[in-house]
Amino acid sequence: MENKVTIRDIANYAKVGTTTVSRVLNDHPYVSDDKRQRVLDAIEALDYRPSQMARNLRGGTSGLIGVLTDEVVTTPYAVDIIGGAQEVAWHNNMVLLIADIGKSADVAEEMVQVFLDRQVEGIVYATMYHRSVELPKALYNVQTVLANCFVEDQSLPAVVPDEFDGGYHATKELLQAGHRRIGFINLWEVRNGIPLPLPAITGRLKGYKQALSEYDIAFDETLVRYTNQSPEDNYRHAKDLMALSEPPTAIFCGNDKIAMSCYGVIAELGLKIPDDIAIVGFDNILDITEGLLPTLTTLQLPHYEMGKWAVEYLLNPENKLRKPQVHLLQCPLIRRHSV
Amino acid sequence: MENKVTIRDIANYAKVGTTTVSRVLNDHPYVSDDKRQRVLDAIEALDYRPSQMARNLRGGTSGLIGVLTDEVVTTPYAVDIIGGAQEVAWHNNMVLLIADIGKSADVAEEMVQVFLDRQVEGIVYATMYHRSVELPKALYNVQTVLANCFVEDQSLPAVVPDEFDGGYHATKELLQAGHRRIGFINLWEVRNGIPLPLPAITGRLKGYKQALSEYDIAFDETLVRYTNQSPEDNYRHAKDLMALSEPPTAIFCGNDKIAMSCYGVIAELGLKIPDDIAIVGFDNILDITEGLLPTLTTLQLPHYEMGKWAVEYLLNPENKLRKPQVHLLQCPLIRRHSV
Repeated sequence: MENKVTIRDIANYAKVGTTTVSRVLNDHPYVSDDKRQRVLDAIEALDYRPSQMARNLRGGTSGLIGVLTDEVVTTPYAVDIIGGAQEVAWHNNMVLLIADIGKSADVAEEMVQVFLDRQVEGIVYATMYHRSVELPKALYNVQTVLANCFVEDQSLPAVVPDEFDGGYHATKELLQAGHRRIGFINLWEVRNGIPLPLPAITGRLKGYKQALSEYDIAFDETLVRYTNQSPEDNYRHAKDLMALSEPPTAIFCGNDKIAMSCYGVIAELGLKIPDDIAIVGFDNILDITEGLLPTLTTLQLPHYEMGKWAVEYLLNPENKLRKPQVHLLQCPLIRRHSV
Repeated sequence: MENKVTIRDIANYAKVGTTTVSRVLNDHPYVSDDKRQRVLDAIEALDYRPSQMARNLRGGTSGLIGVLTDEVVTTPYAVDIIGGAQEVAWHNNMVLLIADIGKSADVAEEMVQVFLDRQVEGIVYATMYHRSVELPKALYNVQTVLANCFVEDQSLPAVVPDEFDGGYHATKELLQAGHRRIGFINLWEVRNGIPLPLPAITGRLKGYKQALSEYDIAFDETLVRYTNQSPEDNYRHAKDLMALSEPPTAIFCGNDKIAMSCYGVIAELGLKIPDDIAIVGFDNILDITEGLLPTLTTLQLPHYEMGKWAVEYLLNPENKLRKPQVHLLQCPLIRRHSV
């Protein structure tokens, strides 16, 4: 069934020797115009496609970029990293080799070796959420760019969302709509009993405070809550905020699922969004943001742009000489109908 | 930075000729035990990894499986097809080449050629939602399996969800909980003014009817609605059903987003799930099903299992001789707290 046309078939069809066919394929000058044309005609007539592997082996490049991910491929919103990476790869005639390593460091080591065996020209290492990572050492044997993560010692180039900027613009959107009491239900991640200082948590809080201070509004701790992201905890914090003697007129939510819980609480209270209370989410999970009524104003994590940026960085040879840096990308505000 | 160790380096380190190194690498018998050991020691000391491409070229197999998708990679719930495919590929020392072709037939043709150039050993063609497809002809040049889609003439093997079975079990779950008036907000897809007879729409309706008939309940058309899947339409149908003179005590929803709209309407009416009304969704989009309170009972589309099935099928050489068939996989019921 496979494409079985060989150089021998081309030679027979064109009535030339196989050496001539090979010379034409390799753009060798010692071929007469007449013979070259006959070979090209034969290639077209027989729909011959030279083996990519054979060509790569001669040329010394694989045309492959490896993408290593930790659950990105199976994570709804982070998977856009792959889409962005693919767009750039596509326009540069490269193909992505994608492997999801789950949570296993052993699998990570092994997949890096598989990629090296396949002579990838670079590797993008992408994570499901924005965090610092410890990497397989073998990654330092090939040009590597980190997407949505970073190494503490900044020994590898990385591209991550600007969480401060996201928190700042979410809050400013509500301030500009006239709100002065703005609740913030922030994320909360605990591993082994220790709260993680994730950039999403600390960065967005700083942005929230910065926006408030620009409007001369004092920071009010009672308006800031931390949820463990279970629906029960999301609901509880939304209810607590709405039960304050002076409840907020707007709530900024650390993700769209929290916003969904707020919608539930607000419906139960018989209030209307955005007339009685405004809501801003984070992540832009379309199933939620475009599924809720009214549709949800939120911030887009720049997954697609991070994927693009990472592959563009890999493909620019000048970057091999550059000192690795962490590049920040904005989280655009997506305006819908909840503010 | 790249791995630059060559056969020459191995030969120098082991104090043998390059031919000897090559013989060891190819398991050739004419090498003394002493020289073989020195070469193996050198390979380990220098961390030499023979070029996978060179080995493949000799062996004639690429170790690659191509995966072509139409937006699967960027679709939250369908992306599990990739996860399932990867699990099986991984256990068979194969690597997936993944390309998302979006909606472009031209890109599809071109990517199939890229895959053929790379000598993939088979291709999985996966779609975002269950439907019939027209395929690039070049796909017939290589062993191909369809996942979540099928060709009308059954000329290619396919694996798809059993939609009838899903609708049947969703309805039966509600019947077993004692409900006798069960609303059904079904999907509705229109292209160019023509309603599409999608398997999800027609199959689940048949399953709904079958379950009712087993309980001797007459089919009541007023309980079945079709939504264009906008939140406005979802809300409208949920409100309409609840405004019936004899409203349903349970609603089976064609997807989780519709169920989310039902939650909104029910909260506004001051009713409680599941005490006042039970809800079953479809798709198991975790952001919704585990984000709602109470969490949502729903049906799992077997994306992961379809991915596994497709690659397992490709890797079984006996299947090359088999007449292509469409294989149905069940949609398991995921019990949570809305029934």
